Amino acid sequence: IAENKNTALLNLLEDLHYADVAEIIEELDTKEAIYLIKLLDSDVTSEVIAELDEDDREKILKRLSSKEIAEEIEELDTDDATDIIAELSEEQKKEVISHIEDEEHAKDIIELLRYDEDTAGGLMAKELVKVNENWNVLTCVKEMRKQAEEVTRVHSIYVVDDNDILKGRLSLKDLLTTSTKTAIKDVLIKKVDAVNVNDKAEDVARIMQKYDLEAIPVVDELGRLVGRITIDDIVDVIKEEAEKDYQLAAGITQDVEADDSIWKLTKARLPWLLIGMFGGLGAASIINGFQGAFLKFPVLLIFIPLIQATAGNVGVQSSAIVVQALANNTMKGEMANRIFKEFLLGLINGLVIASVVILISHFAFHTSFLISITVCVALITVIIMAALIGTFIPVFLEKQGIDPAVATGPFITTSNDVFGILIYFMIAKMILGF
Amino acid sequence: IAENKNTALLNLLEDLHYADVAEIIEELDTKEAIYLIKLLDSDVTSEVIAELDEDDREKILKRLSSKEIAEEIEELDTDDATDIIAELSEEQKKEVISHIEDEEHAKDIIELLRYDEDTAGGLMAKELVKVNENWNVLTCVKEMRKQAEEVTRVHSIYVVDDNDILKGRLSLKDLLTTSTKTAIKDVLIKKVDAVNVNDKAEDVARIMQKYDLEAIPVVDELGRLVGRITIDDIVDVIKEEAEKDYQLAAGITQDVEADDSIWKLTKARLPWLLIGMFGGLGAASIINGFQGAFLKFPVLLIFIPLIQATAGNVGVQSSAIVVQALANNTMKGEMANRIFKEFLLGLINGLVIASVVILISHFAFHTSFLISITVCVALITVIIMAALIGTFIPVFLEKQGIDPAVATGPFITTSNDVFGILIYFMIAKMILGF
Repeated sequence: IAENKNTALLNLLEDLHYADVAEIIEELDTKEAIYLIKLLDSDVTSEVIAELDEDDREKILKRLSSKEIAEEIEELDTDDATDIIAELSEEQKKEVISHIEDEEHAKDIIELLRYDEDTAGGLMAKELVKVNENWNVLTCVKEMRKQAEEVTRVHSIYVVDDNDILKGRLSLKDLLTTSTKTAIKDVLIKKVDAVNVNDKAEDVARIMQKYDLEAIPVVDELGRLVGRITIDDIVDVIKEEAEKDYQLAAGITQDVEADDSIWKLTKARLPWLLIGMFGGLGAASIINGFQGAFLKFPVLLIFIPLIQATAGNVGVQSSAIVVQALANNTMKGEMANRIFKEFLLGLINGLVIASVVILISHFAFHTSFLISITVCVALITVIIMAALIGTFIPVFLEKQGIDPAVATGPFITTSNDVFGILIYFMIAKMILGF
Repeated sequence: IAENKNTALLNLLEDLHYADVAEIIEELDTKEAIYLIKLLDSDVTSEVIAELDEDDREKILKRLSSKEIAEEIEELDTDDATDIIAELSEEQKKEVISHIEDEEHAKDIIELLRYDEDTAGGLMAKELVKVNENWNVLTCVKEMRKQAEEVTRVHSIYVVDDNDILKGRLSLKDLLTTSTKTAIKDVLIKKVDAVNVNDKAEDVARIMQKYDLEAIPVVDELGRLVGRITIDDIVDVIKEEAEKDYQLAAGITQDVEADDSIWKLTKARLPWLLIGMFGGLGAASIINGFQGAFLKFPVLLIFIPLIQATAGNVGVQSSAIVVQALANNTMKGEMANRIFKEFLLGLINGLVIASVVILISHFAFHTSFLISITVCVALITVIIMAALIGTFIPVFLEKQGIDPAVATGPFITTSNDVFGILIYFMIAKMILGF
């Protein structure tokens, strides 16, 4: 496509949304992408660059000079601008910032760079409409008009006092219907939810979801209004959070995509496979330790996969429910009750599965009565144990300040595999007495 | 608490957000909850009831008369009202609707009840601000004021023609800055994203996310404006989607929470455990079929857990990546390339794991050279097979119109367990020749 027909190309791209242009650029190779970006206006390309995948953006920014990057940055809201600058090297950061012409913008970006990206400060933008409580409606409307030019979408009008401390918010309706001389003090709505700059991104997401907010003001330790977070950023947080948990449950450490390089995929996947491998070797040495048993009762061995699979599945189920409850803050009631419930649940599932297994194995493998009893008791015990381990570990990790989501997936499967096989042989020893 | 001090209670609850009141009510027993709800104003309680957990809401609505429910419904936006009514029995639905005094509201609800809850129609609300393209700015502003009273938050002003066909949208800024006599036709913005009533909720979520929209108009087959969807409903869709996928990956069928009844939890979990059980029995019969082998080379058996765990883990990893790519629509490139990549990835992981296993088992279990080779070749083959199966199955299911998320978790683990063990013994047979 990109073979010189500039005007035709421009016409084609003009009507597209920047998110669509970004998708097109991700399909092109870097050279073509750069060509396109230089062709388009910086008010379009800045949004396109903000929309790109991190890897693709890195490639493109490498080919642009600091001055060109600064021009793109200039067009963006402070939150997106900061996200992009944060990805650059320390040296380039300074250079790009020095090329930003609007000093106010540069100052805001420098301030935002200070915050951790997983906090409210890291999510917020400086663009907002704020008015002083001592103004009257007329001054206020004038000021708002001026401020609104720099703000893409006005979500709320925030009211502050002389010290910039957040006092409340204004409704557009009230503003339009009251006399122009009324003091802002008298029309402001005092009830306004706000978050602290240091609040965790997840907590901000939870609050905005709970109260169905489309924007939330951010205040510092002194209660001064320092920024605002909009719901579209929160949607991204929620998605990322969910994807991370999903990948952890599947045994993938880093945020990877199907299209990433083999090296990156290996780095994300191999560590978990090694955990599983050590578990497997652990199980091997347990079985090896009971050599006497399986030479005497070889039929015991054919049930190993069954015991192992069941232990793994039950563990994953229990831990997933607890991890979700912890993430949604819906974990209520006493730990003792929960444990008792899991116990009962394990007992029911165990009894059902054990009875089916006994029937089938009697006909299919002609197992003796004692062997059947062994498998049965082992299955029930293993299911209960796995359910309890699956419930207990995430709660324990959460208390230790570790993300409980790591407890699901290969981690819980592996430990339950090893435990399950150990329990199986110990019960076999007790019942069959070898 | 709820022991008669009505005024004190009212004072206490007055300042709380309805989402907080809902949380309090979820902690109370049904009797106390009803008491509180009857105490509060219906404009608060309606929001509280909409916010409640489905189970809790069911309990409370059972104790209210159809007329009382209708009063609550009357206060809600059409989308929330419809969601609540949809949960009632057919008989009660009719009764409640007949008690709604505002006929317009009742008609809207009846219309919305027709749509599947997983479509744009099921998500949308009828409350929106729309103006005719043939009006001038003055008429428009007057009409808007009237309409805005019924709409809690104005996201966009939509422009329709005489046949109610969506023509574009208005920006508040343009409206305020142009002369009152200008025709709407001349100021409207023609570029407006819209979805069809029958579009899937997931697709609506994807569009709104991609274009960072806070509200989107919904049109019918003829292009007529029938409703609008706001981002807060989309946040719920995204969360539910993510939770469903997570639970499916963990082998939990229904949407359950840690606090659900044992019966509900068993129903959600047992079916997957039974799948795992049949897999385990399948593996048992494979091992049983190779009895000659394991009597001759009993050491082969100690590696069963290792083979099984590795096959399961690799399968879950591969399928999780594909399932996420499918969900995010980031699946690009040829299937053949993807297969080749998984093959290479499996080969690398397999070589690493096999070398570690060979070393450890040589020292720990004194395995012979042939046995080591067997385990090694089997591991590499199993890893590659598991990676390919994990990649292929979700793509296949998606093509068949089945949610690929069911392919992760116990389903893939179980099939890989059985396959893995079969491959292991077949390779052992080839190398050791029993």
